[in-house]
Amino acid sequence: MTRADRQQVHEQLESELTVLWRRVRRLSIALARQVDAGIDVAAYGLLSALNDAGDVRAGDLADRFGLDKSTVSRQIAQMESLGFIERVPDPLDGRARLIRTTEVGRARVRQLRGARGEWFGSALQHWDAADVDQLVELLGRLNEALESRDP
Amino acid sequence: MTRADRQQVHEQLESELTVLWRRVRRLSIALARQVDAGIDVAAYGLLSALNDAGDVRAGDLADRFGLDKSTVSRQIAQMESLGFIERVPDPLDGRARLIRTTEVGRARVRQLRGARGEWFGSALQHWDAADVDQLVELLGRLNEALESRDP
Repeated sequence: MTRADRQQVHEQLESELTVLWRRVRRLSIALARQVDAGIDVAAYGLLSALNDAGDVRAGDLADRFGLDKSTVSRQIAQMESLGFIERVPDPLDGRARLIRTTEVGRARVRQLRGARGEWFGSALQHWDAADVDQLVELLGRLNEALESRDP
Repeated sequence: MTRADRQQVHEQLESELTVLWRRVRRLSIALARQVDAGIDVAAYGLLSALNDAGDVRAGDLADRFGLDKSTVSRQIAQMESLGFIERVPDPLDGRARLIRTTEVGRARVRQLRGARGEWFGSALQHWDAADVDQLVELLGRLNEALESRDP
């Protein structure tokens, strides 16, 4: 297989992932609306990232998650009013505040992840279990391969 | 394998995809900054979706792509000032306007997709070609399985 053929396969990978993003995004919007009307689905993306990242300085959120500052401010305000996050003093800098997920926020992340997992399970119910396992394994290897790379 | 084991595999699928989203998002931000400082990476997501969807009514954009109206307005203004999109009259409703990608906008989408494809290729350079092919095939099947499902 030539180099050009391989480049085509990699663009096909990019294209399948783009389509997948959009489908999962549509699902996530619908799931998020079922549980809390009035919160952006993107706010759940941020909540989920905060859940995994641990405490993050409020001032670092926009850069760290690649969002613009006004979007972050609005999402943080929404999540704070729902009790999903709280602000705690930064032990390294008395003037700074850290954003931390609350137990309620972490429970909500688990609930949404469980719902998405069930949705995948339902969509894949006619697949051989071996194919699902292989997809999960290959995605894990893809994540490892991407982890060490800076664009 | 029990039902609970399978649910765990599906949550693992969900989790690998979440990690993958974040990595590809970080890459996309870096690539977008290399080509145009001052445009949101999310605006490129919208440009890419518009490129694939064809003409869309300006008033339908927010709902259709699951974004809030103020975000869409800002992104559309950015893309219009860069010449990536144009507004054309809606033949079905003289008062409405359609958003359409320009040739410059479509070329930018192709450029960014090519760059992402090259980045995947570079990350996967040590993989067997058969594994890459299998990943692309399984993602294609996943997209088909998700296409027909409403959450």
